Amino acid sequence: MTQLATATTRSIVIERVMPHPPEKIWRALTQGHLMEEWLMKNDFQPVVGPKFNFRAEPMPGWNGVTDCEVLIVEPNERLSYRWDASGEEAANGLKTVVTWTLTPAKAGTLVRMEQSGFRAQDERFYQGAGFGWQKMIAALEKVAAGLD
Amino acid sequence: MTQLATATTRSIVIERVMPHPPEKIWRALTQGHLMEEWLMKNDFQPVVGPKFNFRAEPMPGWNGVTDCEVLIVEPNERLSYRWDASGEEAANGLKTVVTWTLTPAKAGTLVRMEQSGFRAQDERFYQGAGFGWQKMIAALEKVAAGLD
Repeated sequence: MTQLATATTRSIVIERVMPHPPEKIWRALTQGHLMEEWLMKNDFQPVVGPKFNFRAEPMPGWNGVTDCEVLIVEPNERLSYRWDASGEEAANGLKTVVTWTLTPAKAGTLVRMEQSGFRAQDERFYQGAGFGWQKMIAALEKVAAGLD
Repeated sequence: MTQLATATTRSIVIERVMPHPPEKIWRALTQGHLMEEWLMKNDFQPVVGPKFNFRAEPMPGWNGVTDCEVLIVEPNERLSYRWDASGEEAANGLKTVVTWTLTPAKAGTLVRMEQSGFRAQDERFYQGAGFGWQKMIAALEKVAAGLD
């Protein structure tokens, strides 16, 4: 039995119907200054390929940086990026993928966020992200609500 | 803003590559006596439509029964069923969907389990199921390994 054969990974999936059209949510998901309001400082560009960072306040044992790379950009529908540990933690740290899917719904837009790739040793990140994304997605909805 | 517009749901997703062909895993997922070995006593039949139950030992405050209904049966590829609270808890209790997806992989089969539909008030089930499924999926692999 190879190591691969026993690797179990988990994902966090959060779905929320927001009373806004997909276009407004897409802007909040992909415009750097809006992303900073509900998520983190960043140098994101909505183009497939480039690497970018999210930057939070450093803490003891964490440089505050998340290494990312844009994987999918389908305007108003789907956005995906790598979300990996940075710096000294990069080698054995978190290697996940965040995918946003927007689907028109009766009451607005169904927003689905999936972060996949948590291994057994990523348990504390899995727990933390599960709570963190709920707050951030609620904040995302407020940012979208404030757009013209 | 309607109630629907602010409803957030979460899913549990677990993925594991098992060193077995999809056919063996499908048998362990869909034959009642094998399901009892890794999951629970049941009266499941691999046919779309029928309602069925999983039955565990009753505990104070829980009758031990899960009300289910088969939604999708695509042999060796996809299986989906409702996974709902039963009895007195049915009205305001858990209403989720469990979907199994089998994808051939280099080292065997990628097994993906998604249980979707956890609301904010289902927090304790969400936490419990997150741990429970990891154990059950490890047990599923052992059952599949024991098949001819």
